[in-house]
Amino acid sequence: MTKFIRIDMGSKAVTIGDCPEKYAGLAGRGLTSIFVADEVKPTCHPLGKYNKLIFAPGFLTGTSAANSGRLSCGAKSPLTGGIKESNTGGTFGQKMSKMDIKALVFEGIPEEDKYYVVKVAMDGVTIEEAPAEIVGMGNYEAIKILQAKYGPKAGVAIIGPAGEMRLTGANISFADPQSNIRSAGRGGLGAVMGSKKIKAVVIDDAGAPGVTIANPEAFKSASKRFTNALTTHPVTGQGLPKYGTNILINILNEAGGLPTQNFRRGRNEWANNIGGESMTANMEARGGKPTHGCHAGCIIRCSQHYVDAQGKYITSGFEYETVWALGANGCIDDLDTIAYADRECDDVGVDSIETTVAVGVAMEAGIIPWGDGKAALELIKEIRKGTPLGRILGCGAGAVGRMYGLTRVPVVKNQAIPAYDPRAVKGVGLTYATTPMGADHTSGYAVATNILKVGGFVDPLGKAGQVELSRNLQIATAAVDSTGMCLFIAFAILDIADGFNALVDMINARYNLALTGDDVSALGKIILKAERGFNQRAGFTNAHDRLPEFFEEELPPHNVTWDFTDEEIDEVFNF
Amino acid sequence: MTKFIRIDMGSKAVTIGDCPEKYAGLAGRGLTSIFVADEVKPTCHPLGKYNKLIFAPGFLTGTSAANSGRLSCGAKSPLTGGIKESNTGGTFGQKMSKMDIKALVFEGIPEEDKYYVVKVAMDGVTIEEAPAEIVGMGNYEAIKILQAKYGPKAGVAIIGPAGEMRLTGANISFADPQSNIRSAGRGGLGAVMGSKKIKAVVIDDAGAPGVTIANPEAFKSASKRFTNALTTHPVTGQGLPKYGTNILINILNEAGGLPTQNFRRGRNEWANNIGGESMTANMEARGGKPTHGCHAGCIIRCSQHYVDAQGKYITSGFEYETVWALGANGCIDDLDTIAYADRECDDVGVDSIETTVAVGVAMEAGIIPWGDGKAALELIKEIRKGTPLGRILGCGAGAVGRMYGLTRVPVVKNQAIPAYDPRAVKGVGLTYATTPMGADHTSGYAVATNILKVGGFVDPLGKAGQVELSRNLQIATAAVDSTGMCLFIAFAILDIADGFNALVDMINARYNLALTGDDVSALGKIILKAERGFNQRAGFTNAHDRLPEFFEEELPPHNVTWDFTDEEIDEVFNF
Repeated sequence: MTKFIRIDMGSKAVTIGDCPEKYAGLAGRGLTSIFVADEVKPTCHPLGKYNKLIFAPGFLTGTSAANSGRLSCGAKSPLTGGIKESNTGGTFGQKMSKMDIKALVFEGIPEEDKYYVVKVAMDGVTIEEAPAEIVGMGNYEAIKILQAKYGPKAGVAIIGPAGEMRLTGANISFADPQSNIRSAGRGGLGAVMGSKKIKAVVIDDAGAPGVTIANPEAFKSASKRFTNALTTHPVTGQGLPKYGTNILINILNEAGGLPTQNFRRGRNEWANNIGGESMTANMEARGGKPTHGCHAGCIIRCSQHYVDAQGKYITSGFEYETVWALGANGCIDDLDTIAYADRECDDVGVDSIETTVAVGVAMEAGIIPWGDGKAALELIKEIRKGTPLGRILGCGAGAVGRMYGLTRVPVVKNQAIPAYDPRAVKGVGLTYATTPMGADHTSGYAVATNILKVGGFVDPLGKAGQVELSRNLQIATAAVDSTGMCLFIAFAILDIADGFNALVDMINARYNLALTGDDVSALGKIILKAERGFNQRAGFTNAHDRLPEFFEEELPPHNVTWDFTDEEIDEVFNF
Repeated sequence: MTKFIRIDMGSKAVTIGDCPEKYAGLAGRGLTSIFVADEVKPTCHPLGKYNKLIFAPGFLTGTSAANSGRLSCGAKSPLTGGIKESNTGGTFGQKMSKMDIKALVFEGIPEEDKYYVVKVAMDGVTIEEAPAEIVGMGNYEAIKILQAKYGPKAGVAIIGPAGEMRLTGANISFADPQSNIRSAGRGGLGAVMGSKKIKAVVIDDAGAPGVTIANPEAFKSASKRFTNALTTHPVTGQGLPKYGTNILINILNEAGGLPTQNFRRGRNEWANNIGGESMTANMEARGGKPTHGCHAGCIIRCSQHYVDAQGKYITSGFEYETVWALGANGCIDDLDTIAYADRECDDVGVDSIETTVAVGVAMEAGIIPWGDGKAALELIKEIRKGTPLGRILGCGAGAVGRMYGLTRVPVVKNQAIPAYDPRAVKGVGLTYATTPMGADHTSGYAVATNILKVGGFVDPLGKAGQVELSRNLQIATAAVDSTGMCLFIAFAILDIADGFNALVDMINARYNLALTGDDVSALGKIILKAERGFNQRAGFTNAHDRLPEFFEEELPPHNVTWDFTDEEIDEVFNF
C-alpha cells in the first residue's frame, strides 16, 4: 500500500508504485542512504542526470508522538562528493506520512531551461511550470506566493536563488507551521534540486488517510513514557526550551571549546553578549517568542521568533552554530546583525553553517575585517546577486579557502567544521573526521558526553574513550535519524533508559514489530556501512578521514592539539 | 660530489649536502617523483609547511646532446591534490647540471609576510628579500629587473602575481635564452612556490665545472646518432621546426578530434585561420621568428617569436594547446588575440592550458560570449587584479565549473583536459583518465600513434590496442622525462630504433653505466608506481581515473562516445 513515488524531471514521467521490497523496512535516513547507495552511480556528477534526490519521512514521522516531525533528504552531495542525508523539520514530512508516501524520488534533468513546481496531492503528482515571479525570488516571499496559490496549509520544499545557481552551499528550505523557514541545510542538496529545475515541491494532504498505527493502545502508552523522558531530562525539558540551542555559547566558552577567530582560540571575552541567555532576554524585552516548535507535536520547542527592537520578526531556527560562526569565529559581537545574516541565509537558500563559517574564512583572506558585522551581512548578500564573490561564498568555506590560497580552512571532505573545536572536544573531532557526511556535529554529537555529561562523561581534552564514544554515537544517530524524531531526543534517551525503550516500543506498536534495542543498533550499523560503502565507491579512502593540518596548533586556553594518530582515527569505523 | 641542496624557508637554513644514496640513480621526473613520494606527507595541505618543492635536471640536461635542456619540478599539486611533475625548458636546468646540483629542494613556510629571492651560485645559496618593486609584478618585467641585478645571463625561476595569490592554476616561469618565458605549467606549482614566499630563484653558473662525461668519445658518437634521428624524422626534422606544435590544428580538425565549443564537436570551419600554417605565414610576413629553441642545444626549435602587425614581439612558446583552447574550444577565430592571451598567461604566471580551458568553461557559464576574443582577454586580465572572478579563473577550469554549477567541465582530477577529444583520440583519453598527473596529454601522448602514425598506428576511434598504447607510452614518458630531454624526441625514438639506442648510450657514456632499453622501461614503471602510490596515500582510487560523464555524448563528425568500461580503464595501470 505504501507509496513510493518517482518523478523523472527529464521525461516528466511520474511513477506511483508500491514501495520496493528492499526498501520496505527502512525509513528516514536509513531509506535515503540505502536508496542512494543502491541507485545512484557513485562516480556520477552530483549535478548531472544520474544523481537522484530522495525525500523520506522517518518511522514515526506524522504520528502523535512528541517530536516526530522530521524528514530526511538524500542524494550525492555536490559539496562533499559523497553521500548526504540532511534532515529537517517543517510540515512536509508529516504530510507525506499522513498520505502514506514512503518516499519521493526526483530523477533526471530537464533539457529545457525552465523551473518547475512539483505538486503532490492525494489525486496524484503533477509537474507544473513555476510561476515566473518566484524564479530568482527569496524563500520567504516565494513560500507566501506558493501558499496563496496551493493553499495556506500546503507543505512547501523550496530552493532559493542559491539553489537555482547550483551553489554547493545551497540548502532545501521547508515551510514551518507559521510559513517560516526550516532547512535541510547541509551538503548542497539545494543545488541538486536546482539542477533538476525544481523550484519547489508543494504537498497537499487534504483527504489523506493519516498515519496508520497497528496497535494504538500500545502506541499511546509508549508515547506517554517517551514524552515523560523528554520533559524530565534537564536538556530537553529545561535548557533547550528556555534558551534554544544557543544556550551552548556560554557553555562551550567556559569549556574552552568555542572556536574564536577562525579556530585560533577556544574562549573569548564577549561570548555572553551573543549567548542564549542574552538572546532570550532580547526576545522577552522586545516581544519575540523565545520558544517555538518547528513542527506540530514538538515539545522541546528550541526554536524561537527572534525580533528586532520594534518587535518585528527577523528569523527563527536561530541556532547556536550560526551565532557561533559569526559571533565567535567571526568576532561579531552583535546578535541582531547575526540574526539578519541568518535570515538572509534562509531567504537566499544557503546552509547557514557552511556560509557563516565561510565568512570566517573570508575574514582570514582579508576580504572583510574581523568582527565587521555590517560587512559580513553585505558579503552574504552578494550570494543573491550571483556575483563571482557571492558564488565563491555560496560554494562554502572550502571554496573561499581555495580561491584565496589559504591553509587555515576548517573543512572535512570540503564541508565546514561547526561550532565545537575538535582539539577541546575531541569526541566530536572524531565524528567530524570520520562521518561519511563531511564535518558534521549532528552525525555523532559527542559534545553531549564530553561537555554536557549526557550519556556519561568522557574527558573532552583527553583521547581516552573518544573512539568508542564517537563510534557508538554515530551508530545510534543513524538509527535515530531513521525514526523521524528530532535528534534532540537523544539527550533524553541516552540518560533515561525507559525513554529509549519507549521509542522502540512506539515503532513496534506502529508497525506491529518486535524490535529490540539491539535491532536499532544493528540498523545504525547497516546505514553507516551503506553510506561508507557509497563513499568508497565514489573515491573516498581513510585519507579523507582527516582534519585540516592547522589543528596541530595549540588551542588556548587549554593549549590542546589534535593528537589522534591516523590509526586511532581509523578505529572509529572498525565495527 | 653531486650536490643536493635543501632550503628551508621557515628557518632560512640552507643545507648543501651530497645526494642521498636513495636518490643517487635518479634524475628529472624520476627524482622529483620518488622524492615527493618519499618525503612529502601525502595528506598534507599543498600550500602548507609539509609540502616540498623540488627542481631536478635530467640525466643528460646540460650536456652537449641535442635537446637536453629540460628541468623537472615536483611537489604535491594544489590543483589536483596528487603528485605533480611539471617540466620546462629555459636556461635554469642546464645551469644546475653544469654546477653539479642534483636537486634544489624548497621546504617550510616563512612566518613573516615577505617575499624572497633565493640566489644559487658556486659560492653558496643565499636567501634575500625580494626587491619591493617586483612583488606583484608580471614575469616579463620582473625577469628583466632580476637579470639587471643578478647578471644578464642569470637563470631565473619566478612566479607571477598568480603564484603570489596561490591560485591553483599558477605556474613557475623560467627565463629562456632571450629572457622570454618558458613554464613548468601544469598543476599549480607556482602556488606552492608562492606559499613558500619565493618570488624567484636566480642561478648563476659562473665558475661552474660543467657537466662531467665519464666517456667523452662514446658520448660524442652516441650524440651524433641521436641528432641524426631527430633531424631525419619528419615530425622533429620538418613539421615541428617549420610550424611549431600548432601544426596540429589542421591535423586534429581533419581527424575530427579538435574539441570545439567546450568539447561539443570535433571539427570546425575556421581551423585553418588559427593553424600553424597561418601562424607561420603571419610571422614570415611580419618579421617574426617562425622557429626558435627554448634552450641552448635545441635542434627541433618548435618555439617561435610571434609578433604583431608592426613586428613587435608578443609571445613565444605559443603552443597548439593554447591556440586550440581559445581558438577552437572558445571559438575565437583570431590568432593575434590568442597570442595576447598567451602572453598575459605567461606574464601573470598561470598555466596557459588550464586558464584557456577555463575560459571555455566561463563561456559555458555565460560569463562571456562564445567567440568573443576581446572579452576573453579581459577575463584573463582579471587574474592579475585579484578580483573574485580573476581568482576563480586563476584556479582553473574545475573552479569555474564548480562556482557556476556546471556539469560540462572538462577536467580529470581537477586538471583541465587539453586539446585532443578523448572520444576521437581514445588512446590519449586513457592517458587523461589514468595518469597520476590529472588530465595531461604529455604523460602518454597516444596522439602520436592514433593520429600521427608515429610508433605504428592504432585506430583513434576504436578501443582495440589503446590500453596497451597508453600504458606503454606512460611508462616510456616517465623515463624520457627523467633524461632531461625534450619530450618531442619521443617522436624520433619511437620510430627510429637507433635513436632510442643512442639515447641509452649517451646516459651510459655520461655515467659509465651499462643500461639497456629494458632498464629504461623498468625505470618508467618504478616512477609511475611511486607516483600512483603517493596518490593512493593521498586518497585517490580508481574512481578518480574517470572522465567527466558528458563524454558519453556523441561527438560529431564521427559521432563517437567515450565507451571504455571502468574495468578496461583500470587495466592501464595493471603492470
